[in-house]
Amino acid sequence: MINYRPIARVISILLVIVGGLMWTGVPFSAYFDEDLRPLLLAGLATIGLGALLYLVPFRRGIPIRKREGYLIVVLSWLAMIFAGMLPYLFSGIIPNVADALFETVSGMTTTGASVLTDIEIQPRGLLYWRSLTQWIGGMGIIVLTVAIFPLLGIGGIELFAAEAPGPTSDKLHPRISETAKRLWLIYVGLTVVLVGVLTLLGMSPYEAINHALTTMATGGFSTRNASAAAFSPAIQYALIAFMFLAGVNYTVLYLSLKRRWADVWKSEELKAYFSLVVFLTVIITIKVYHATGSQDLEQAFRDSLFQIVSLLTTTGFVSADYTSWTTSITLMCFVLLFLGACAGSTSGGIKVIRHLVFFKNSYLEFKRLIHPAAIVPLRLNQNIVPGRIITHVFNFLLLYLLIFVFGSVFLAMLGLDFMTSIGAMATCLGNVGPGIGEVGPVDNFAWLPGHIKVFLSFVMLIGRLEIFTVLVLFTPFFWRLN
Amino acid sequence: MINYRPIARVISILLVIVGGLMWTGVPFSAYFDEDLRPLLLAGLATIGLGALLYLVPFRRGIPIRKREGYLIVVLSWLAMIFAGMLPYLFSGIIPNVADALFETVSGMTTTGASVLTDIEIQPRGLLYWRSLTQWIGGMGIIVLTVAIFPLLGIGGIELFAAEAPGPTSDKLHPRISETAKRLWLIYVGLTVVLVGVLTLLGMSPYEAINHALTTMATGGFSTRNASAAAFSPAIQYALIAFMFLAGVNYTVLYLSLKRRWADVWKSEELKAYFSLVVFLTVIITIKVYHATGSQDLEQAFRDSLFQIVSLLTTTGFVSADYTSWTTSITLMCFVLLFLGACAGSTSGGIKVIRHLVFFKNSYLEFKRLIHPAAIVPLRLNQNIVPGRIITHVFNFLLLYLLIFVFGSVFLAMLGLDFMTSIGAMATCLGNVGPGIGEVGPVDNFAWLPGHIKVFLSFVMLIGRLEIFTVLVLFTPFFWRLN
Ligand SMILES: [K+]
Ligand SMILES: [K+]
Repeated sequence: MINYRPIARVISILLVIVGGLMWTGVPFSAYFDEDLRPLLLAGLATIGLGALLYLVPFRRGIPIRKREGYLIVVLSWLAMIFAGMLPYLFSGIIPNVADALFETVSGMTTTGASVLTDIEIQPRGLLYWRSLTQWIGGMGIIVLTVAIFPLLGIGGIELFAAEAPGPTSDKLHPRISETAKRLWLIYVGLTVVLVGVLTLLGMSPYEAINHALTTMATGGFSTRNASAAAFSPAIQYALIAFMFLAGVNYTVLYLSLKRRWADVWKSEELKAYFSLVVFLTVIITIKVYHATGSQDLEQAFRDSLFQIVSLLTTTGFVSADYTSWTTSITLMCFVLLFLGACAGSTSGGIKVIRHLVFFKNSYLEFKRLIHPAAIVPLRLNQNIVPGRIITHVFNFLLLYLLIFVFGSVFLAMLGLDFMTSIGAMATCLGNVGPGIGEVGPVDNFAWLPGHIKVFLSFVMLIGRLEIFTVLVLFTPFFWRLN
Repeated sequence: MINYRPIARVISILLVIVGGLMWTGVPFSAYFDEDLRPLLLAGLATIGLGALLYLVPFRRGIPIRKREGYLIVVLSWLAMIFAGMLPYLFSGIIPNVADALFETVSGMTTTGASVLTDIEIQPRGLLYWRSLTQWIGGMGIIVLTVAIFPLLGIGGIELFAAEAPGPTSDKLHPRISETAKRLWLIYVGLTVVLVGVLTLLGMSPYEAINHALTTMATGGFSTRNASAAAFSPAIQYALIAFMFLAGVNYTVLYLSLKRRWADVWKSEELKAYFSLVVFLTVIITIKVYHATGSQDLEQAFRDSLFQIVSLLTTTGFVSADYTSWTTSITLMCFVLLFLGACAGSTSGGIKVIRHLVFFKNSYLEFKRLIHPAAIVPLRLNQNIVPGRIITHVFNFLLLYLLIFVFGSVFLAMLGLDFMTSIGAMATCLGNVGPGIGEVGPVDNFAWLPGHIKVFLSFVMLIGRLEIFTVLVLFTPFFWRLN
């Protein structure tokens, strides 16, 4: 028997919070002289639903086990998504249910793919809500990766626990809620700082808030049709810096706030992430500089760095159309959709730590071939990674690629062309936003038929929840008694 | 210290054999009134080189260890390739060294990609040699997968040892040379039978011999520009049957010759391979039938089945242009380039058994998530697969995909378009032959610049030798003393 009572409790509290957050958009609607009712009513409905759910007399049951854990994660996300659709539907800016679903899933999963063809004509209050869905999603992801996934053993993310460098007593506070609160404080703090920075650099406070929310969530929704290309170089550099920060493991961010630099430096994932950015920027800057003869070097550097950090962190802001440079850059940027930034950040996709496990183990496999009798353990941050976790990480990587392949074939069968099929799957599964083909950096997802939007919404969700969390609900042993 | 003496011995014997096999083409040259000198001289040079190498006084050393094993495999293949280029260069039908290298590597690795734009105008004796390179390569692969790779522990291929069903005492003769001889007998026998079948169905004896050689090697070189499309439906069905057989594990073929059907039936890889063919044929026949309104059902079925078996077994014969149907079929056929047939056959690519390990383990990972305390072992043919081998198989799969991705980006950087880059890498790494883009089923590789041909030759070789075998030579610990 599954114990539905704690599941319902979590969801009802979440709904009340989400409803309350909807109301934070009302001042914007009021300031810009817009209709206040959509956000007011949507907030009211959401809080009402949460309260109603709280009153349902679920039987007291056994304590929470793994099954309840999975259901809490998936059903919470679904509840936030369905509530999040209400402002779009009530205001009528996205009247179609499939479209509203896609836009909200894209928000809550911090993907940033959009069905809005002209963003700038939309009511400001609702655009703020759109940005906020990503920030809420990012907050959810921090608690998931820090507190819930390690308990469930999902996707080898417990590796990231080993990511907290230093001796055990120095680790973050062991209590889940305490840890989550500390990391949320960093998340909120960085968002506030970014609002200040962007305002100082000349953005309007309204736009600064929106972009701060979607940057720290590595979400990528913008209030401009041109995305980050609409802003000055200084603002673009600020966004680069904060996108990069948003892609760092929050435990490491916490350690650096404590000025424990030696511990920060021990994080192999951080070093790999940083090196990747530097390495790719050098290569792509050179290629972009050569491909666009007239351009100055600073712009080639900034455009390359921006797109690389945006894609690596799976933010998906666009300051230049990477598909317009050369075939090889397009292909490289497509490959970037599969990398991701650090585990324990708000970024989506595969994440650097899993690639690190793969690269390290590949190297060691060769050693094992030559010395079959020797024991050659894989170490990460000076800890041995058990074989069990290596297998699980590899299985995650392969499952990720399998879903990408099957999904691409499925999209092609539904009529999309080759590039669009693989582009849409890669960007939705990795929660990035822009892809290649007809869903490239200067396109959007509005033109896709409704059933494809529903399918891609599902893909975004399984990508965000590290695949296993969602798919395990479809296995027979999940529902089998005992 | 590496003991070069046994390495040199093996290579010198191989060269003598390869030179002798070149001379088997002389009767064809004579029969068709062609210049006898290229094959005569190339054979003489090859045998001479082999004899010279035999005379070099290498020091007697320590017994053969793993290092010598790897060097024997890689250097033997290189020696056969360099000898195999001689007939093309001596005759001048492929005067360019990069082209001759590509054609010979494509032969010896049983890939079947070609730089000849018009095959039908070439001297028959040399085309026979071209077909024979594939047959020699196939023979080499049988001894590698049956005898050498399991000893070296390459690519989890030792799983295939567990593939010999039944109790240990029933296994094939344990002595390597005995086992190899028995399987070669099957290989030679099936080739002879196929020559007879094709002749009976109306092929000329010369073409029957050529196609029998390249079918059993899952090579795919044809004597016709139109490949298998040049022949009657009956011949195409015969080729389908023998391509399928050539994709079966030779140990299983041996068991079925012994009429031990119960043991044959236990092979999970065989069942998966067969099911894949049936499943894909049903789907693609329906899609082809709908896509080509005018066509009759029999042709849709035959075209689909032929292309599926040809791609799955990595033979690469073409009876219809699969890229001309629909986007989704093109994408599916592209995915087929990554499957392969059974381990222990002459087929290339990833092979069904590795996919089987992946699918089974994925299923079990979900079970392990729900029951973290339980021990959930992976079984294949009723034997438990050790975690060590699962990791190695997964590492192989990921390394294979990594090489595909890096190679594709590299080709795009060298100027190829997106589809051609991924098509060429997939088909060369998988030893298939036809790809997509500008190297599709009705194209060839002649137009590519020389340096790309050399690069793709290397890719074919690492694909054929299960990646680890070649790449281990580039690791520091291989050359480090002791
Ligand atoms: K994103
Ligand atoms: K082939």
